[in-house]
Amino acid sequence: MQASAYRVIQYGVGAIGAEVARVLASRLDVKVVAAIDSATDKAGHDLGRLAGLSRDVGITVTADAEAALALPADVVIHTTGSYLEEVAPQLLAAVDAGKNVLSTCEELSYPWDRHPALSRQIDARAREAGVTVVGTGVNPGFVMDTLALALSAVCQSLSRLEIRRVVDVSTRRIQLQRKVGVGITPEEFEKRKATGRFGHVGLMESARLVAHALAWPVDDWQEVLEPALCDSPRQAGEIRLVRGQVAGIHQVVSARRNGREVLRLELEMSAGAAQPRDEVLIEGQPPVHMVIEGGVQGDLATAAIVANAIPAVVAARPGLLTMADLPLLYARRVQG
Amino acid sequence: MQASAYRVIQYGVGAIGAEVARVLASRLDVKVVAAIDSATDKAGHDLGRLAGLSRDVGITVTADAEAALALPADVVIHTTGSYLEEVAPQLLAAVDAGKNVLSTCEELSYPWDRHPALSRQIDARAREAGVTVVGTGVNPGFVMDTLALALSAVCQSLSRLEIRRVVDVSTRRIQLQRKVGVGITPEEFEKRKATGRFGHVGLMESARLVAHALAWPVDDWQEVLEPALCDSPRQAGEIRLVRGQVAGIHQVVSARRNGREVLRLELEMSAGAAQPRDEVLIEGQPPVHMVIEGGVQGDLATAAIVANAIPAVVAARPGLLTMADLPLLYARRVQG
Repeated sequence: MQASAYRVIQYGVGAIGAEVARVLASRLDVKVVAAIDSATDKAGHDLGRLAGLSRDVGITVTADAEAALALPADVVIHTTGSYLEEVAPQLLAAVDAGKNVLSTCEELSYPWDRHPALSRQIDARAREAGVTVVGTGVNPGFVMDTLALALSAVCQSLSRLEIRRVVDVSTRRIQLQRKVGVGITPEEFEKRKATGRFGHVGLMESARLVAHALAWPVDDWQEVLEPALCDSPRQAGEIRLVRGQVAGIHQVVSARRNGREVLRLELEMSAGAAQPRDEVLIEGQPPVHMVIEGGVQGDLATAAIVANAIPAVVAARPGLLTMADLPLLYARRVQG
Repeated sequence: MQASAYRVIQYGVGAIGAEVARVLASRLDVKVVAAIDSATDKAGHDLGRLAGLSRDVGITVTADAEAALALPADVVIHTTGSYLEEVAPQLLAAVDAGKNVLSTCEELSYPWDRHPALSRQIDARAREAGVTVVGTGVNPGFVMDTLALALSAVCQSLSRLEIRRVVDVSTRRIQLQRKVGVGITPEEFEKRKATGRFGHVGLMESARLVAHALAWPVDDWQEVLEPALCDSPRQAGEIRLVRGQVAGIHQVVSARRNGREVLRLELEMSAGAAQPRDEVLIEGQPPVHMVIEGGVQGDLATAAIVANAIPAVVAARPGLLTMADLPLLYARRVQG
């Protein structure tokens, strides 16, 4: 442990929180001082055990958020949910306790359009408390927004930007497969879609972040969510798929200016998806066509980005910021 | 022109300086207030004409650097040479005149190892004057250093990093072809190499910047420069190549820790090079394999990065910084 280690409070010990705990346990420049989770199978247990570390780390997960947030700490790593309205009280409690916040809440990555009033409230409270709040992760947070912005640095001008992520969820955890509807019928897909709580959360946020950072005016935003259908029988992890069943989601955000599509984000997350990859296509001067073969592994990367962002978020100016406001993040070597 | 336009002095109007002038002429948030070049075919001419804009921009290129640097300005864009010792007096004059400096001097991208005393001097004078000095460009400055660092943000840990750039110079300007020895004999290649002034400048700087930013200890640095030989007759722009002639350079930097190669940068710049691309291969958790097909076009990108870095360098803390110290750069839309 370094003398100047960053003191971290983990808020949420689900799949992502556990992955974050594993990363932080390997870092010499970080000390976890508390962990919060109200789930009855988590509160009272050691964080290390819950994170699958096969050893105690000496931090007992607590359901008492107020007491934990009152402890001296530099940053709260918040990993409890995707929807800003639901998690806002948690974020504001951390802010009011004088803590910087790094959250994987997808809607927080660029909340200004979907939740303007709440964004202004979080921003004002953060400024008042002198702390920074940032939403990040691999997607939204990196592969479909920040990375495209980073690549644009080589361009004198841009006329169109296309960003694509294809994930073969058959190689990923079962929760993710369920989340994108692997194995359900097209009818069930439409029912879930009608709830407004189905599909990937954050694609529109990525698109809005990119357009905002590039200062691109957009006349018309469209988002379409469709099932990726199984066209030949296949095994997806534990699920056996037959032709016509849902293999996952195909989600597209399209932004137009003067009738022309200037920004397109396409996300396919399905069992057996062909050519898994992350792709950025910049039509500009010069053009750029980037592909990350296989795509960036999501859960590992989200935990990595959160851990790698700690120094930047502690040093950043107060307020509700985005990834486009932070300095370049990278994997500084801080393991033992 | 915006009321708060960045005032720029261009120092150097060669191939890169002219490209920068063309980019800046299209930007609403930049006003060029002076241009310096002592070449007799440049001083006295209009910057726009020299930059091939087919119109005057109202800035007459001057050989009087002192007078030009005394004008009120936010940043000097310096594009006169690759070697730090040669251009240091120009950089220091700009610093002493109270100007931030963005330079394409390759050795300035990470000068601390090759020129420690000079680096300390520039750093001290910049701090004293309250200005920032940064070396950047496409390579060094982006594709073989900053981009790899940006990608590392998704990694929990890294064990090895390989960065490759392959440029087919037959599609590029004749000066670049000459610079990498297209059409010379292997004997002539060895002679030029022996001067210490041949090959790509900046590969070691990129490698050192990456190792520094990642806080990687390195026991042993190696750099090798070899000719890429023509194995079948081909036409390279204006040059007809026969078998056995030099088609360009193949340059490698390798860094080892405990006898193991942890960092490798490979640059091939040759006429007819196969599979031109920029490639980053991260062995880590998770691994990342990124390819930019065709590679980023160098001259266009260098001018773009310089222009896109202006706001960041003006806002940055004083001193001699690197690209790893700057915020995320991107192509904010500032054209008319």
